[in-house]
Amino acid sequence: MSYDGTGLGGWQRQLGRETVQEWLERALEYVGAGRTCVHGAGRTDAGVHALAQAAHVVLEKGPPTDRLHFALNTALPPSIRVLFAEEMPKDFHARFSARGKLYLYRIAAQEVLLPPLRRFFHWERRALDLSAMRRAASHIIGKRDFAAFATHPGIPRVRSTVRTIRGLHLFRTRFGIDLYVSGDGFLYNQVRTLAGTLVEVGRGKTHPDKIRDILESRDRKQAGPTLPPQGLFLVRVDYGDQYPPSRLLRRNHKAL
Amino acid sequence: MSYDGTGLGGWQRQLGRETVQEWLERALEYVGAGRTCVHGAGRTDAGVHALAQAAHVVLEKGPPTDRLHFALNTALPPSIRVLFAEEMPKDFHARFSARGKLYLYRIAAQEVLLPPLRRFFHWERRALDLSAMRRAASHIIGKRDFAAFATHPGIPRVRSTVRTIRGLHLFRTRFGIDLYVSGDGFLYNQVRTLAGTLVEVGRGKTHPDKIRDILESRDRKQAGPTLPPQGLFLVRVDYGDQYPPSRLLRRNHKAL
Repeated sequence: MSYDGTGLGGWQRQLGRETVQEWLERALEYVGAGRTCVHGAGRTDAGVHALAQAAHVVLEKGPPTDRLHFALNTALPPSIRVLFAEEMPKDFHARFSARGKLYLYRIAAQEVLLPPLRRFFHWERRALDLSAMRRAASHIIGKRDFAAFATHPGIPRVRSTVRTIRGLHLFRTRFGIDLYVSGDGFLYNQVRTLAGTLVEVGRGKTHPDKIRDILESRDRKQAGPTLPPQGLFLVRVDYGDQYPPSRLLRRNHKAL
Repeated sequence: MSYDGTGLGGWQRQLGRETVQEWLERALEYVGAGRTCVHGAGRTDAGVHALAQAAHVVLEKGPPTDRLHFALNTALPPSIRVLFAEEMPKDFHARFSARGKLYLYRIAAQEVLLPPLRRFFHWERRALDLSAMRRAASHIIGKRDFAAFATHPGIPRVRSTVRTIRGLHLFRTRFGIDLYVSGDGFLYNQVRTLAGTLVEVGRGKTHPDKIRDILESRDRKQAGPTLPPQGLFLVRVDYGDQYPPSRLLRRNHKAL
């Protein structure tokens, strides 16, 4: 599914917030699937957008699978849309079967932020040094300990903070810079903190090669700020060879 | 200035709607410029966006010109931003000195509309035939009578409906099709009706060469529907050689 995170309380069900998980479960009940528990590929935070988030749910009744997304979309708010649904093998799990994710962080670098961009970009007032940011990005790619780039609200420290960043690509757009980052999994706030650190490099505040020291320090205070959620998009979730993209998924991936 | 037309009542001041003109005049009063009348280059409709709309105003007091946009932006809602202000020759008029305008109409062609796009795209459920649309567009370029593509609420019929379309370019985007159209001036609803007619060609409902007959008919009923406002952006206003783009304007044009 895709969602516009503006005004949403993120993925995970929680009291007093409108969340994607809760909306989906409500919509499933509305279309006659009964009370269910929807499992997402990952928990996007409040305000973060998704172009193709994935989730699974075990259904015993309800509309036929190929019509399910139409039915659900009649019950969902316009900020949330199910793009398609399909039956998966019994051992498939949206979260545990995921092999990787692709995120996009969008930065508008302009003196005055264009209002149509304000819900989907982080705003920087001045131009950023793209080549310095690319040099810094080269130090981030690979299997590394990203402790310096993660915040851990309530997660015990014993868990590993080693992750693999497979790709980190920066593109100049007509509004600023788009940052695509793919990897096997991400720590809490990792993408937004990587983006914040790269922006400090782009501003000339941090030397590109200092990224290595920041990684080594494993100290969150060494990295840059966690940028706001509205610039972040979960572009897609990859499930590898065991669950090759279906025709539907391939068609949708192509468009994203 | 740039604005996000969502929820705005368009450019022109009118009772009971929040309009850009009214907001600007209110902001000018707030920053100490007194009661003024702001003249826009063109009246965008309710819901239409602008990346670089132009306007002029005669000021006798208030902040210095080079600081004016900062001052105004503190008084404007986040949906409206002044990008810059500069002093112009006395004979300059935002509307009458304009030599042309560039509009963008954005179409998302996808089975389910991605929620982050919903305020900035017209939605088509199926793929559109881009080459047929381009062939149709070739009949539209040039100096022609566009009576068939305009609606005239309250405008007397005696006014000329001849306009010159200088460029009409269609680009495939990852979401659908972007339509850029530039010309010396546009009739009421002309861009949205041109877009609606081209979409009917793209759907295969109208033959590309039928555009010539539609133009000749001068009959609004022969053309396609007027597409909704949220896909339309006023990209910029051109003032020709008499008022060559200033350094500020050039810098801003480059980014749009």
